[in-house]
This record gives sequence, C-alpha cells and structure tokens, in this order.
Amino acid sequence: MRTIRLVIEYDGTEFAGWQAQGSPALRTVQAVLEEVLSRVLTEPVRLAVAGRTDRGVHARGQVASFRTESTFPLWRLARALAGLLPHDVAVRSFAEVPDDFHARFSAVERRYVYRVLARPSPLWARRAWWPWMIFDPEALTEWFAPLVGEHDFRAFAGREPSGVRLEHGRCRVTRLVFAPWDGGVQLEVWANRFLYHMVRNLVGTATSFTRGTRNPADLVAILESGDRRRAGPTAPPHGLCLEGVVYPERCSPIGEVVDGWGKPLQ
Amino acid sequence: MRTIRLVIEYDGTEFAGWQAQGSPALRTVQAVLEEVLSRVLTEPVRLAVAGRTDRGVHARGQVASFRTESTFPLWRLARALAGLLPHDVAVRSFAEVPDDFHARFSAVERRYVYRVLARPSPLWARRAWWPWMIFDPEALTEWFAPLVGEHDFRAFAGREPSGVRLEHGRCRVTRLVFAPWDGGVQLEVWANRFLYHMVRNLVGTATSFTRGTRNPADLVAILESGDRRRAGPTAPPHGLCLEGVVYPERCSPIGEVVDGWGKPLQ
Repeated sequence: MRTIRLVIEYDGTEFAGWQAQGSPALRTVQAVLEEVLSRVLTEPVRLAVAGRTDRGVHARGQVASFRTESTFPLWRLARALAGLLPHDVAVRSFAEVPDDFHARFSAVERRYVYRVLARPSPLWARRAWWPWMIFDPEALTEWFAPLVGEHDFRAFAGREPSGVRLEHGRCRVTRLVFAPWDGGVQLEVWANRFLYHMVRNLVGTATSFTRGTRNPADLVAILESGDRRRAGPTAPPHGLCLEGVVYPERCSPIGEVVDGWGKPLQ
Repeated sequence: MRTIRLVIEYDGTEFAGWQAQGSPALRTVQAVLEEVLSRVLTEPVRLAVAGRTDRGVHARGQVASFRTESTFPLWRLARALAGLLPHDVAVRSFAEVPDDFHARFSAVERRYVYRVLARPSPLWARRAWWPWMIFDPEALTEWFAPLVGEHDFRAFAGREPSGVRLEHGRCRVTRLVFAPWDGGVQLEVWANRFLYHMVRNLVGTATSFTRGTRNPADLVAILESGDRRRAGPTAPPHGLCLEGVVYPERCSPIGEVVDGWGKPLQ
C-alpha cells in the first residue's frame, strides 16, 4: 500500500468546483481526476484534498492524496495522466509520501491569492476581478493588519453549503497583504485554515472600505462581532486562486518526485 | 470631421481574427466593434487597424482609427462602449488625432510577444503555447541575433490567405529577444512591418533548433534563401499577442485622451 501526493493546477472556469457531487452531470475537478486515475490504475481511487475550492475558483498548487495497492511507477502514471486529462487540469508533480499523509489533515498552511484588476481587461477576464474601483494596496494592507494572527473569523464566513455546523471559527492568519501585480492589486492570504468564502468576503470588505461606505477603523469591531452582516459583500470566485499548501517536514516525499511529464524533480 | 484613435485589448480565443469577413456568421473583433460604434454614433463606422491579427491571436495594445462627423464627446463614447462591448474585447483609450492619422499607414513599429510555456499549464492554456520542449532564452536570442536589422523575411512568411501577392518581403526588425517570463520563455519582436505568420514561423523555427533537427548556424542561410520550406513549422496562434504599436510624434493626440471609463489620461 502506497500513499501518493499530487500537486494540481486547474482553470476553474468550466468546473463546478473541486468536490464530486451526487449528480454526475456536474463536472468537478475531483470527479475528472478520480475517473482518470481509476482507469489508469484499474482500481477505484478516492482523493483527499487540501482545499475544496468552489465553482469558478482556480488552483496553481492544489494538493490531493490517495492510497493505492498499485505498484505502477509514478513516471508512467504522470505520462498517462498527461495524455488523458482535459486541457484545463494538469498534475504538476507526483510523489510517494509517508503512510499517514493526508492532503487535508496534514496541511499546516494554505496560501490563496485574489487578483483584482485596475481596469477591465479581456485578457484577464477569467482570472481576475474588475470591481469598478481602484484598490490602494498600501492603505488596505495597513487597514487589514489587525487581522493577522489567530482570531475567530466568523464575521467573514459564508454559510457552508453542506449545512454542516462550523465547530469553531478560529483561523491563524500568517500573512495578509495587498500587493501590486501587473494587472492591479492582489490580496495574498496565508492561514492554517479558511472558513467558507473567507477570502472572497475579505476582498468584498476591502471594496466597502475603498468605496468609503465603511470605516476601516471598524475592522476589529467587525471581526470581534462575529456578525457576517457587518462585513462586506462576497467577491466573485474567478479572482481567487489556491497558490499552494504547506506540510510539515515529516510529510516530505519518500523516494522520487516526478513532474507532469514523469521527469525527476530535485 | 474628426479622426479618432482607439487602443484595444482582446482575448482572441473566441474571435475569427480581427478582420470582418464576408460572412456575418464569423465573429470578428472588427465586426463587433464597428457594429457597436455605429450604433452609438448613429452613423456607419469603418475601422482602419494597425495589425490584422489572425484567428486566436490576442492583443493588449491593438490600434484602430476611424473618421466621423459626430461630435459625441469621447468620455461618453467610452462609457457607452464599456456597457455595450462583450467581455472579451475592451477599448483601453480614446483620443482625437490629427486628420491624416491612419492606424495602419501611420504606424512605424509593431510589437508582438509570443509566449512559450516551460510546462503544460491549464491557467495559461488560452494564452501561451506548450511546445513539449524547454526553450533556452539566451541561446535562442544569440542564434536569432543575425535577423535584427532590415532583411527580406520571405523565408518566414506564410502564403497570404487573401491571395494578394506580396510586393516585397523587407522588414526592419528592431528587437528580437527570447526573454524569461514567469511561465517560461517569450519571444519579443519589434518591426516596422510583419509578413503573414512571421512571428509564429520564427517560433516554429526556434523549436526546430531546440529539438536539434536544424542547425542554428544555418539561420542566415535560411533567411537569405527566401525559401519558406527551409524554416520551421508555424507555431499555433494562441501564444501570440500584439502588445503595442508605435506612431511618430506628429500623430500625437490633439486634445484629451480618455481611458475605457471615460476618465482623462495624462
């Protein structure tokens, strides 16, 4: 029995999110990958995942894992998948990891970026949001600085579509920066966990401040209220991208890591 | 009578190129823009253009111009177009220019970029090409250096689909550099004019050299032969983007320049 870790990139535009749904009519990243992996390995494959991204959300460094009886070499698995996957999803690397690795439960940090445009841009229309206003990265970074650290973020959490009640709202945010990128401003947020719609609600709240309909001095009060109605609207999904996931040292690959071609990575 | 200059951005994926065709069933950038401009200005508008990009080719800084009797203010034109154009084409700026300005005939330099990926990437699949090989930017820039300057580029020219016979093949190339970008390597070519498929054939020739099926020392011989069959294959359109067009000083705007929102630009 081996545990395999995949690092995955996808354009979320034409997916109904990560998670396989009851209805097979919904095209999800998980369903597409599990179908192809099961076909190649001739056994049912079920993926665990670090971040269950929503409909329309992209990923550059999503991480998934599965356990398999198969001894099929990873470099051959890489080539088979390169041939079988559709154009909008690719596995960037394959590695065997320790037995107890679990893409979701072993992760210690998720890193998201939300891209905001400084003007409408057809070339970025699928991957960045034009909010009809100009973000000031320095002011926003300063206003949002009190959110760095461990807090209850329920004021920025949407209602889980699963209906499952949230156990607790505590997240440890290690980075929250609005930085310039060549099309405008991007919000970079790193945290051990994220509540539902949390990044999109942070961006929506940034628009309220930029528009001047809310006072940034109230940010701590909004956070402490735990009241979703006091934060801003939810920004659309297509600006959001899961950039990467961090695991502890003990989860490091055992043996070779290969890229999407099956070539060894150092 | 005024002459108006537009700077245009588009995602070429869902367009049958720039040029309006006989068949109205073909969706072209020119037809979409002319239809909307004519509707707003209530007179027929016919656009001249700097670069007649092909099906699937993108533009960040395409330039078009038209003459009009209308005195409709540019800032209102900008807002009307922002509301009426589809998501994959936008006008970035509007300006009144001297009477004799012509987007095609006044242009002195066109600047193209062709993006090549270093690995398959779903997030860049629409806008960059994965040639199944790794480009070495320094070696390629050195190999292609003899092409900078004024030469007859017919060895790199496809047959014009219009069937019109080429008057001459001379182009003055002022820049030809393979530079790293965050997804791989991009070819940047600036020239006073481009022959049909010229940039895509330069990229295709670069793949022949990278693969080792042709000798870069032969590049001058290929150029001098004027024989299309000696150069490499034609790279696909989706990696290509018209970045900008240069005009002489005397073509500078007369009066205000406004952005895609109708706000004054300096």
